[in-house]
Amino acid sequence: SQRPLKAAPIENRLPCSLEDLYKGTTKKMKISREIADASGRMMPVEEILTIDVKPGWKKGTKITFPEKGNEAPNIIPADIVFVIDEKPHDVFTREGNDLVMTHKISLVEALTGYTVHLTTLDGRSLTIPINSIIHPGYEEVVPREGMPIPKDPSRRGNLRIKFNIKFPTRLTSEQKAGIKRLLAP
Amino acid sequence: SQRPLKAAPIENRLPCSLEDLYKGTTKKMKISREIADASGRMMPVEEILTIDVKPGWKKGTKITFPEKGNEAPNIIPADIVFVIDEKPHDVFTREGNDLVMTHKISLVEALTGYTVHLTTLDGRSLTIPINSIIHPGYEEVVPREGMPIPKDPSRRGNLRIKFNIKFPTRLTSEQKAGIKRLLAP
Repeated sequence: SQRPLKAAPIENRLPCSLEDLYKGTTKKMKISREIADASGRMMPVEEILTIDVKPGWKKGTKITFPEKGNEAPNIIPADIVFVIDEKPHDVFTREGNDLVMTHKISLVEALTGYTVHLTTLDGRSLTIPINSIIHPGYEEVVPREGMPIPKDPSRRGNLRIKFNIKFPTRLTSEQKAGIKRLLAP
Repeated sequence: SQRPLKAAPIENRLPCSLEDLYKGTTKKMKISREIADASGRMMPVEEILTIDVKPGWKKGTKITFPEKGNEAPNIIPADIVFVIDEKPHDVFTREGNDLVMTHKISLVEALTGYTVHLTTLDGRSLTIPINSIIHPGYEEVVPREGMPIPKDPSRRGNLRIKFNIKFPTRLTSEQKAGIKRLLAP
């Protein structure tokens, strides 16, 4: 007897928020498929597939449910594959295992002191005082506040805070003279 | 009679300074090759190949001297090909037809006024007063001071001046108080 052919896998995107990928979550996906009853007659059924999204999973991670496609005579049903997709986040972007955020601050804040207040992806409040002058390109690295690393739950990426320093758009000549007097070497 | 084969082309890099590519230049390249004399005996000769580098030529431009390789019985001599290469420049980088330079300035200069002095690739002195506050990412575009465009000598790229603003590394609390007083909204 010939070995039956298998239908090509069916891929579906599984959009996840960055919060979902940070904390992990369970997604239940309803699928409809045709199966053969005892008499061999095809009938539609609905099934719930449960996907256990692990903390730290990356975009592109694939979860395969073998042979969950439609049944048909002389063919092995297709695998149903879900591919993790990462929804854009308002505050954080992900760079590998790191999380990156950009804070808009004024020039006065950059020069005289600034404290970052932020809410982590699992809802904690962090307060990070910046002790140095914030120059263009300055990056504050908060260790272990990035994404979990699925292969090694004892480790985590970093949180990197960047700054967009808003300069004044105009200054009076008195202000300019004052700046020169204050900062001139 | 069979058509004779041709030897594979011989490529040579032709490094040019950005000044050469800006102004155009003539490069004379000495090559040594074997040619057959009247009696068919091979003899080495030296030849000077003259390359007329046109203003605005880009890296990768090829100049071919047909059949200037060694002669040999029953074979067509190779073409000699020169490929323009652009040497790095201390001040300017080229982006397409634009020239880009980065000026290091102090925060005081960024806020109170700055005048760019520069020497163009053909040796002219340019003075460009910047009339606005120079913020991070500010770019001063000087029209038509970029590279010549070989296909249309009436046009030119732009010169784009970027700024690297050096912030003070520390400020006294008096300086910080002064800045707050001067710049606070």
